[in-house]
Amino acid sequence: MTQVSFDAQAPLVGILMGSDSDFDIMKEAATVLNEFGIPFEISVISAHRTPGDLEAYASSAEERGLKAIIAGAGGAAHLPGVTAAMTPLPVIGVPIYSKKLSGQDSLYAIVQMPAGIPVATVGIDNARNAALLAVQMLALCDASLMQKLREFRQKLAEASRQKTAKIREKLRANG
Amino acid sequence: MTQVSFDAQAPLVGILMGSDSDFDIMKEAATVLNEFGIPFEISVISAHRTPGDLEAYASSAEERGLKAIIAGAGGAAHLPGVTAAMTPLPVIGVPIYSKKLSGQDSLYAIVQMPAGIPVATVGIDNARNAALLAVQMLALCDASLMQKLREFRQKLAEASRQKTAKIREKLRANG
Amino acid sequence: MTQVSFDAQAPLVGILMGSDSDFDIMKEAATVLNEFGIPFEISVISAHRTPGDLEAYASSAEERGLKAIIAGAGGAAHLPGVTAAMTPLPVIGVPIYSKKLSGQDSLYAIVQMPAGIPVATVGIDNARNAALLAVQMLALCDASLMQKLREFRQKLAEASRQKTAKIREKLRANG
Amino acid sequence: MTQVSFDAQAPLVGILMGSDSDFDIMKEAATVLNEFGIPFEISVISAHRTPGDLEAYASSAEERGLKAIIAGAGGAAHLPGVTAAMTPLPVIGVPIYSKKLSGQDSLYAIVQMPAGIPVATVGIDNARNAALLAVQMLALCDASLMQKLREFRQKLAEASRQKTAKIREKLRANG
Amino acid sequence: MTQVSFDAQAPLVGILMGSDSDFDIMKEAATVLNEFGIPFEISVISAHRTPGDLEAYASSAEERGLKAIIAGAGGAAHLPGVTAAMTPLPVIGVPIYSKKLSGQDSLYAIVQMPAGIPVATVGIDNARNAALLAVQMLALCDASLMQKLREFRQKLAEASRQKTAKIREKLRANG
Amino acid sequence: MTQVSFDAQAPLVGILMGSDSDFDIMKEAATVLNEFGIPFEISVISAHRTPGDLEAYASSAEERGLKAIIAGAGGAAHLPGVTAAMTPLPVIGVPIYSKKLSGQDSLYAIVQMPAGIPVATVGIDNARNAALLAVQMLALCDASLMQKLREFRQKLAEASRQKTAKIREKLRANG
Amino acid sequence: MTQVSFDAQAPLVGILMGSDSDFDIMKEAATVLNEFGIPFEISVISAHRTPGDLEAYASSAEERGLKAIIAGAGGAAHLPGVTAAMTPLPVIGVPIYSKKLSGQDSLYAIVQMPAGIPVATVGIDNARNAALLAVQMLALCDASLMQKLREFRQKLAEASRQKTAKIREKLRANG
Amino acid sequence: MTQVSFDAQAPLVGILMGSDSDFDIMKEAATVLNEFGIPFEISVISAHRTPGDLEAYASSAEERGLKAIIAGAGGAAHLPGVTAAMTPLPVIGVPIYSKKLSGQDSLYAIVQMPAGIPVATVGIDNARNAALLAVQMLALCDASLMQKLREFRQKLAEASRQKTAKIREKLRANG
Repeated sequence: MTQVSFDAQAPLVGILMGSDSDFDIMKEAATVLNEFGIPFEISVISAHRTPGDLEAYASSAEERGLKAIIAGAGGAAHLPGVTAAMTPLPVIGVPIYSKKLSGQDSLYAIVQMPAGIPVATVGIDNARNAALLAVQMLALCDASLMQKLREFRQKLAEASRQKTAKIREKLRANG
Repeated sequence: MTQVSFDAQAPLVGILMGSDSDFDIMKEAATVLNEFGIPFEISVISAHRTPGDLEAYASSAEERGLKAIIAGAGGAAHLPGVTAAMTPLPVIGVPIYSKKLSGQDSLYAIVQMPAGIPVATVGIDNARNAALLAVQMLALCDASLMQKLREFRQKLAEASRQKTAKIREKLRANG
Repeated sequence: MTQVSFDAQAPLVGILMGSDSDFDIMKEAATVLNEFGIPFEISVISAHRTPGDLEAYASSAEERGLKAIIAGAGGAAHLPGVTAAMTPLPVIGVPIYSKKLSGQDSLYAIVQMPAGIPVATVGIDNARNAALLAVQMLALCDASLMQKLREFRQKLAEASRQKTAKIREKLRANG
Repeated sequence: MTQVSFDAQAPLVGILMGSDSDFDIMKEAATVLNEFGIPFEISVISAHRTPGDLEAYASSAEERGLKAIIAGAGGAAHLPGVTAAMTPLPVIGVPIYSKKLSGQDSLYAIVQMPAGIPVATVGIDNARNAALLAVQMLALCDASLMQKLREFRQKLAEASRQKTAKIREKLRANG
Repeated sequence: MTQVSFDAQAPLVGILMGSDSDFDIMKEAATVLNEFGIPFEISVISAHRTPGDLEAYASSAEERGLKAIIAGAGGAAHLPGVTAAMTPLPVIGVPIYSKKLSGQDSLYAIVQMPAGIPVATVGIDNARNAALLAVQMLALCDASLMQKLREFRQKLAEASRQKTAKIREKLRANG
Repeated sequence: MTQVSFDAQAPLVGILMGSDSDFDIMKEAATVLNEFGIPFEISVISAHRTPGDLEAYASSAEERGLKAIIAGAGGAAHLPGVTAAMTPLPVIGVPIYSKKLSGQDSLYAIVQMPAGIPVATVGIDNARNAALLAVQMLALCDASLMQKLREFRQKLAEASRQKTAKIREKLRANG
Repeated sequence: MTQVSFDAQAPLVGILMGSDSDFDIMKEAATVLNEFGIPFEISVISAHRTPGDLEAYASSAEERGLKAIIAGAGGAAHLPGVTAAMTPLPVIGVPIYSKKLSGQDSLYAIVQMPAGIPVATVGIDNARNAALLAVQMLALCDASLMQKLREFRQKLAEASRQKTAKIREKLRANG
Repeated sequence: MTQVSFDAQAPLVGILMGSDSDFDIMKEAATVLNEFGIPFEISVISAHRTPGDLEAYASSAEERGLKAIIAGAGGAAHLPGVTAAMTPLPVIGVPIYSKKLSGQDSLYAIVQMPAGIPVATVGIDNARNAALLAVQMLALCDASLMQKLREFRQKLAEASRQKTAKIREKLRANG
């Protein structure tokens, strides 16, 4: 079995979005990757307006050192699936909400990929989870990252535990 | 204004499908084009399994003399939209039904294209209408084809008119 | 094969809407046609409130020189389909969003036409794409228009390419 | 107030369907009208394939003595709404089920009519109820018909009451 | 055939709603009935909170002289169906929109009645059409009311025809 | 606090269904109640065809000694909600599947009750769970029944645990 | 049959929510329980962030004297179902609305439990009904509580009856 | 950065399903893992019937050497999300189709996880893609596996390319 090592200087994760209007959602993925110290790059590339650019990006992603690609898109959301078709790297899809069809279009267009070419789909607008999923993948060959994930989970639990006191206080205030 | 003329020997319409399992639906498009005497070509090209082939096909379609492309796909149906991204020709999308999600996934993934790159979407499994739409487009610069369309409509009306007698007969037989 | 030539003075595209409340969406179609220099006419005609007017409009459309009709409607959106039933010209349907049923009613009532009478359906509220589809159809017999379409696509790509720098700047500003 | 009287010889209700494939559903309306002794006529007229015939039918319906029209259609089901647009008579719409979109398309395309032109919509495939609704309308000016409706309701209740004994017997047989 | 005559003093139509929060929608039905000069009564009666009151209301409706009942309700909207179960009069159901489930719950709970007990369902929040449907029913035995309906339709068409000039003006102002 | 004791001879649970066509689903509730030794009665009563019978049944349920009512219905499923409106006892609703609208109509019409009158809704066609919920309610004042529930859960777990060996065997057989 | 008595000092109902953002909905359950004088406890416990805490809470609930648990959650709403898996007590699920998917995700993830482990599901955001359902369950072994429920229903009816006068007044003011 | 190496003897992937009725779908994941030579284990563990077993399995998964878990479930599909809550390993969810709600319930209950705990969701019934996603994750630290993925993609493309000839032959045979 051939061991693989990461060049921590170069981006390990690519964050893509089809339009800059998706930035307010997708920046959450950047925030999480920063928290875990994972180098990343972020780009606007459209499967429909710049298909050639997407082909160039996706087909070179592996050799450029990327380990995973996070792609957010809405409507007839083709970006994650088309990216997945052009790289053996795992692609994580973030369906972007629109009031039209309540986000069903974005979700279905990303998750219902044909057998052979998966997209790892997260919840609607849940770019945070997309980044955490990328971290989980990277942690498979990086024990220190796995340790960070465990600590992240503990902090998440701690934060949740503070909330009972908070709502009980609110209830008393109301009551 | 530059006039355009068609080379009737070469295919004018390309029929694409993502998988040969879509053939039973998509062959109806071929039947209609044959009825109108429109030369066409039919191919299986997958936006996900053979994205390079699709790029080659779509980006050369116009210079090869095609005037319209009909693309059928199901699930996260990217074929029509990705084709449309790579050619200025009109692309007609046929959402293929699957019991999962009742065809909503196929429909939404085709029709909800972003501004700039339209796909002319027809009803679920309605490859017949996709071909008729292609004929209507071709007829814009072919008066004899437009005449055939008018005759087709009359036959359609005549066939519909026969049905009243038929169901009245059935009712009498029942009653 | 009979060649067809366009009278550039007369409207080539008819834009219809069922109600003036659809104007804010449908005016985008007018904007696009203006950009491409396509003469058009725009009208409010209701399939339900003025069915006779619609019949007069649609059945004379071809002889009046129209090449395509764009029809926008919401709810039980019959306008595109009824228009399509009364002209051999291609009809492009724009489903208009309403919060009730999230636009599903408008979309389904337009796209699910019976075999024989297609409506080329675009995304919900996507009047821009309806106009681009009309341009694509007209360009089939107008090489200069096809050239404009290619240039439009290049500008679209260029505009998209500017966005990466923009969001990277935003991210730096945030971070 | 001008009193209206019915000519019992002539059809009082028109049953329309867009295609003879809807006959197996729509014949239930005929059965109910026969049970109540209401004269009716049944026809296949398509809003899309024979729009002129529909116009002729609907716009003359009132003067021909019809009191209500029952129209069944599936998919982009325009028949009831277009009929309603061309007659002041009440129009009752029956959405016809199709596995594609589970009948949502038929239902939405019929029920979501714009303000001004109602269609009285019944449940998917529920032609029986469409006919009963027509009977209820006719009974508003026919006291003997109203009496028949009351008796029909009593029989319905009686039939329902027989069912408890039946299922208890089944349960004993099972158990 | 027994002729029926209306007592124009007494209410001919009952408007029901399950909660006073539905009043803003349901008052449109009152407005229409006033326009046509139809006497009506309006009440809040809940199928769930005051089932006994509903039974008293519905089972006496016919003998009190009502000719039709319009019932609006949202969510698990039982009011129209339960009313219909307790009177042979035609019941018209108005599904009230709620952001939860986009109005699908209200619509389905009203329209999908079992065979035997129809509810004439109109579009979501479309109380105007419910009243027009009631007028159409009453007009079946009142020729002067039918004449008013014809005039109403003409005014509707006239109003619609004014809109083309209006949007063309807007477009010029924009352009 | 006033203690309540159960008369084990009389039925403690009433199982209702709107139509005998629901029996194949609803009999599962009877099977579960038998397994737990809970006396019950089973009846066909329709909210629409026999509303008076339902009123008689529901309003006397408590004094007749019933502790809970399980009601199954499909389509515009009013039976559970109308029952709940007429008794202070807990009512458990079972949405019955129909291919039309995929069971959404039954589910929404049962679960979306207005504030004040709850229906405890279980999954589509899940009459087994309705009965288990009734058992859970009865067990609140019957410690021996609570013990039976614990044992039932253990058997459920044991049965589930047998399945791993079973599928591993199948996989070996396949492989 | 073993009688069970309640220790009125200790909480009888546990109110759980997955996140403090659900508090504004879930506090309505607390309000209702207070109205009926039922002691309760309220906590934030997440099935995903603190699964161990949930296990500790749910598996000890019965011996700590709880009689029912009300759990509210949104999205992939696992809290009610996972709680139900770890206690024989009845669990009442409240689906929390989110604009994404219009609340369908929350509802389906709670109501569609597998056979064996029911969750008593109420309407979207309807924490009031969840509490009333808990009261109905507790009232099965507490006659005084049942009496309070009857009085609650009467007040509900009285409040509803006030509304007719209110809307008639509004209508006069409008008209 | 700490390098991680895999013990190829021990299972690297765990395949879970909630019920043995899901085996016919989930065995496809086993088939794919076998094709890639990835050792795996397959088990039936229910989040609802055996929550303790699931806790034991998931919380020990990482130390037992698993790198990813594939979990398939239907209805209120909690298995993938609950597993994800108890391990830092990536969890891949497979929504299992059921005719009730057309698979929407399974999909939504898996994909809509709260921020913090992602599940990598694939298409409905698409266990094949779940396994391929697991392979993609493992290949991030195993260059020979990445090479196998590239070859797999080439074979997929080759297989797709054979299909054009096949359907053209069929069309000739038909025509």
